[in-house]
Amino acid sequence: MGRDDGVESGYGSDDQPRNRKHAKKEKEEEEEEAMMSVERVFEGKEVPSWRQQLTVRAFVVSFVLSVLFSFIVMKLNLTTGIIPSLNVSAGLLGFFFVKTWTKVLEKSGMLQVPFTRQENTVIQTCVVASSGIAFSGGFGSYLFGMSDHIAEQMGNGPGANDYKKLSLPWIIGFLFIVSFLGLLAVVPLRKIMIIDFKLTYPSGTATAHLINSFHTPEGAKLAKKQVRTLGKFFSFSFLWGFFQWFYTAEDGCGFVNFPTLGLKAYEYKFYFDFSATYVGVGMICPYIINVSVLLGGIVSWGLMWPLIENKAGDWYSADLKLSSMHGLQGYKVFISIAMILGDGLYNFCKVLSGTLLGMYHQFKGKNSLPRVASSSPPESPQLSFDDQRRTSLFLKDQIPTSFAIGGYIIIAIISIISLPHIFHQLKWYYILVMYLAAPTLAFCNAYGCGLTDWSLASTYGKLAIFVIGAWAGKSHGGVLAGLAACGVMMNIVSTASDLTQDFKTGYLTLASPRSMFVSQVIGTSMGCVISPCVFWLFYKAFKDLGLSTSAYPAPYANIYRSMAILGVEGFSSLPKHCLSLCYGFFAASIVINAIRDAVPKKYSRFIPLPMAMAIPFYLGSYFAIDMCVGSLILYVWERINKAKADAFGPAVASGLICGDGIWTLPSSILALVGVKPPICMKFLSRAANARVDNFLGS
Amino acid sequence: MGRDDGVESGYGSDDQPRNRKHAKKEKEEEEEEAMMSVERVFEGKEVPSWRQQLTVRAFVVSFVLSVLFSFIVMKLNLTTGIIPSLNVSAGLLGFFFVKTWTKVLEKSGMLQVPFTRQENTVIQTCVVASSGIAFSGGFGSYLFGMSDHIAEQMGNGPGANDYKKLSLPWIIGFLFIVSFLGLLAVVPLRKIMIIDFKLTYPSGTATAHLINSFHTPEGAKLAKKQVRTLGKFFSFSFLWGFFQWFYTAEDGCGFVNFPTLGLKAYEYKFYFDFSATYVGVGMICPYIINVSVLLGGIVSWGLMWPLIENKAGDWYSADLKLSSMHGLQGYKVFISIAMILGDGLYNFCKVLSGTLLGMYHQFKGKNSLPRVASSSPPESPQLSFDDQRRTSLFLKDQIPTSFAIGGYIIIAIISIISLPHIFHQLKWYYILVMYLAAPTLAFCNAYGCGLTDWSLASTYGKLAIFVIGAWAGKSHGGVLAGLAACGVMMNIVSTASDLTQDFKTGYLTLASPRSMFVSQVIGTSMGCVISPCVFWLFYKAFKDLGLSTSAYPAPYANIYRSMAILGVEGFSSLPKHCLSLCYGFFAASIVINAIRDAVPKKYSRFIPLPMAMAIPFYLGSYFAIDMCVGSLILYVWERINKAKADAFGPAVASGLICGDGIWTLPSSILALVGVKPPICMKFLSRAANARVDNFLGS
Repeated sequence: MGRDDGVESGYGSDDQPRNRKHAKKEKEEEEEEAMMSVERVFEGKEVPSWRQQLTVRAFVVSFVLSVLFSFIVMKLNLTTGIIPSLNVSAGLLGFFFVKTWTKVLEKSGMLQVPFTRQENTVIQTCVVASSGIAFSGGFGSYLFGMSDHIAEQMGNGPGANDYKKLSLPWIIGFLFIVSFLGLLAVVPLRKIMIIDFKLTYPSGTATAHLINSFHTPEGAKLAKKQVRTLGKFFSFSFLWGFFQWFYTAEDGCGFVNFPTLGLKAYEYKFYFDFSATYVGVGMICPYIINVSVLLGGIVSWGLMWPLIENKAGDWYSADLKLSSMHGLQGYKVFISIAMILGDGLYNFCKVLSGTLLGMYHQFKGKNSLPRVASSSPPESPQLSFDDQRRTSLFLKDQIPTSFAIGGYIIIAIISIISLPHIFHQLKWYYILVMYLAAPTLAFCNAYGCGLTDWSLASTYGKLAIFVIGAWAGKSHGGVLAGLAACGVMMNIVSTASDLTQDFKTGYLTLASPRSMFVSQVIGTSMGCVISPCVFWLFYKAFKDLGLSTSAYPAPYANIYRSMAILGVEGFSSLPKHCLSLCYGFFAASIVINAIRDAVPKKYSRFIPLPMAMAIPFYLGSYFAIDMCVGSLILYVWERINKAKADAFGPAVASGLICGDGIWTLPSSILALVGVKPPICMKFLSRAANARVDNFLGS
Repeated sequence: MGRDDGVESGYGSDDQPRNRKHAKKEKEEEEEEAMMSVERVFEGKEVPSWRQQLTVRAFVVSFVLSVLFSFIVMKLNLTTGIIPSLNVSAGLLGFFFVKTWTKVLEKSGMLQVPFTRQENTVIQTCVVASSGIAFSGGFGSYLFGMSDHIAEQMGNGPGANDYKKLSLPWIIGFLFIVSFLGLLAVVPLRKIMIIDFKLTYPSGTATAHLINSFHTPEGAKLAKKQVRTLGKFFSFSFLWGFFQWFYTAEDGCGFVNFPTLGLKAYEYKFYFDFSATYVGVGMICPYIINVSVLLGGIVSWGLMWPLIENKAGDWYSADLKLSSMHGLQGYKVFISIAMILGDGLYNFCKVLSGTLLGMYHQFKGKNSLPRVASSSPPESPQLSFDDQRRTSLFLKDQIPTSFAIGGYIIIAIISIISLPHIFHQLKWYYILVMYLAAPTLAFCNAYGCGLTDWSLASTYGKLAIFVIGAWAGKSHGGVLAGLAACGVMMNIVSTASDLTQDFKTGYLTLASPRSMFVSQVIGTSMGCVISPCVFWLFYKAFKDLGLSTSAYPAPYANIYRSMAILGVEGFSSLPKHCLSLCYGFFAASIVINAIRDAVPKKYSRFIPLPMAMAIPFYLGSYFAIDMCVGSLILYVWERINKAKADAFGPAVASGLICGDGIWTLPSSILALVGVKPPICMKFLSRAANARVDNFLGS
């Protein structure tokens, strides 16, 4: 495996022939390599010590950007749960802020330390760590899924054991307890993964290239233009969000309910909802994801749900509430879960076997070790100038292994003692078991992510839901124990892979591992405070959070809770034929993935991704249509001017996402203080309109 | 006068010094002139005989374009009455169609006659003549103002004498009778105006330059790009119209009622109504017109009407119908009329005195004759190569003066006999008097238009309303007699100036005056049939045509009828204080114009045009906001890339106007066959929405 795999493009059999070919023209290449060397460009620039890399201004800027990105990620969490990579926007904005800062200081003659790329990497790391918590904190998934809010909405009258009232203090406490273990777990392994295995980490590498490019004069000029583009679309998107606000006096009003494709299509959630965010997301996500999402929507809302609806009264009782899990909603949720689990299981096995196979090769003989192939320059057998310089700096600042292991044990003890106080359903021995397994899983995830850029954090979390949930059992609050365990596990493995990515970025930008670690710790701490606060703002401002008809349906909160219930109660709660359908979709999900991997890449890129197909099963296609509009815009742009689209596409997309995301800040504040929009833009059928006109006229 | 006049830029004291300066560097100039000569470029191309210029394909294309432009002009007539110059779009599209046609034939080897610029001019002339009838036919003004429809809506229960039921046959007959006199009136004078007086005719000259440029290789390439741009925006605008249609199930629904600036502003007609047409119109009209329109809207709907509304019950009875002329509607209409008449009177005097002064100079001594200055190359004392060639060809094909005079007399007799059969209120001696005065007025208008590009056709029409209306008197159907007389007069003077413009275009493109005349006659005939049919489609399809709340309020139909009533009944019908306000605005209109002319151009270009300010007095500012959006787009575009904006701005604007205009064809057909849009996009205040939600829920 790994041989014919579309996703694992960094780790294929095809880079060995490439190296052999290169060995023949070694001479030529050395010259070429010297020209292509990144570090030669920066040779004259002194690398600051790791303490100097950690400037106050970097963390001030990081803080501002963390708040920004927490809002954006939270909005994405609560609307669809689809979160694109925001690294480019974070990089661009970080560069922009510090550059402006230093420019101003320079003019006033107060500049003491110039802006270096190491500092830029520190900001990047801190922001990504902080906004990562907004995702791994589970505000759109397990954590929100624990709440009485979701429990009530799902209509399964909960026992006192089955939910936990949300409150800010315990959320922050919980995050602080579980978010640092992952960091400490991978610190001792950094040399193995970065220097010895030379893992790719496509996102980390891409970020490093971005940062390196910013600090060349040519790159800075381009970056300035990109920032300007980002700013333009940021403003547009923000103002558009503002404009839309005026017309959404109540639910069902405004552009988000625009029946763009007709009222019948709207009923089945096929409409373009004018969301700048998801148009932007569509521009960042690969075409196949957007197409998969749309396809999922067509299969489910276009075909299956209407058919199942016809069986109302036969397959399920016709007079259930719409949100009841025993009715149509049950089919939607459980079939999504089946697909997500099928996809997760397949990829888990694939990445795990890839990891094991990769490690086997690594330890068997250094000669056949997989090479970095995707975006860094090809290496000649001897270490290139770049590699020498990078390695020497990477190894200069050490983090003692004893510190890491000691820290891990201390935090583990603290959390084994304290976590059962937060969730009394979570016994101390569940936690102990998880913490024994965690370092292995953290390493697996970090390694797999290095190969495939695919963090399986949520899959490990789901695993924990089922294992711990079943262990605890229904009568002992298994639902909540499962969800809490999911939280613990997700945080550990997700921060572990984040940190290793950052080590790679640091390696390529000559930032010290120590400064990376410190920045990650500070970023994580920020995230543990900022994310819960941002969530709390949403939670208080939008009363219908989590309702499937609201603007913030938080699909994964429902899905995670349903999974936990499934794990505890078994299949008894499912409506008629739902289980068979679930088996079918579970199998289909695995088969589709297998076919994707089996056929050559030129065909596999037309095969949809089951994971992406699952979300619209629950939500409907409206955001899929937004995303496809984004794809279409990008496609047309690429056809007109490929170079420009490549250079500015991500900036446009980031602008659209950020502007709309930031608009949620004032909008939630307005909602909090009780200011309601003045106008309702309503869509009525002609018949209904005639009745309304009569009513209003009289 | 004429010395310091912004509008009459072609005729100012400043071109004599320019000529004197040029005389000094005669040598240099001759060389330069040779390089700049247009006709040298075309020297190798044979000019076809006048019969060859009149090809069948030219008239087929003209017919298609005539229908297109009749729809567009009709839509503009019936929405606001503001009609921008569509010459560029007609030129571009004409070129595009025949070029495609000849390309196809060329490929199939069947092409016999190549496409010449003379043929292009023939098409241009025919289309402009034909769509000119859509304006001068008065479908948005006097003709529609005669109808029982408008009479009823204005709430002045008409006597049997005061309206005429519209029907297709008499409209077509009427147009045929009155539309050819103007042509015959100016034919004998063409040499004097074009060759001897060398009048500028800015529009005609610009069109000729456009056509000439199309037929150079470089120009053809640009034209191709422009056509592509036009096509793109045409499609966009058409599809946008189509999309909007779905959401307009009833009055008050859809994007045209979007309270873009809030509900309060919407109530006073301040909103952006998403009309592609008026955004396009805004891009074509000079900035000052758009600003004037907006200013007019602010003064009237933002200030005056709310104040007058407060006087309801005091100044006028508070329980009148909204459309009653004795209430607020009366203020709106009569104050508009006052401004329009003030502006008309001022410009009539100005142009007439300019005309007389100009002719005085012409006849007094050839040396001081005014020169063509604006867009044609400066002349040296001897005739340039261009002028020699143009003059020789212009004088080659003669149209016998006896034919013109004979024709005029014959048609005059026919119409004196037949017109009283159509309008029995219009006595034969009124017509005789008008026909005696008509040649002079036609010449005045053609001459004035040559100097200023400003056709005063509608002013002459208004003159006829008052003179003939007062002569006939109230008891003898003076209202209808006045409106009919207006029609006769407007058609004569408007076709006269059109034809002279075309002679100028023909002169500059070496098209024969004979072919121009024939083309104008054919175009006019087409227009006499097409325009009434297009109007009839609108009239049958949209039942609320002319209502001030409808999408087609036809403002001038109400205004013209009110003028006729004013002329016949005097000021007795006006509500309280309305007359004083009218005097004020009448005076203000004259004063503003006088100031515009008195101050230097650098200030005068910031002074609004009273005529443009008057329309929103009646209609409100919504289209003014559209137009300002168009201005803004163009302004920003010019700031970013002036060259591109200049080259493609008119094409974009034309695309927007044409696409939306043509959408009215399918939309009126849909309305005719009774297909109604399925959805209503409604805008409710939050309170109203809560009530509606309650009502729909129960």
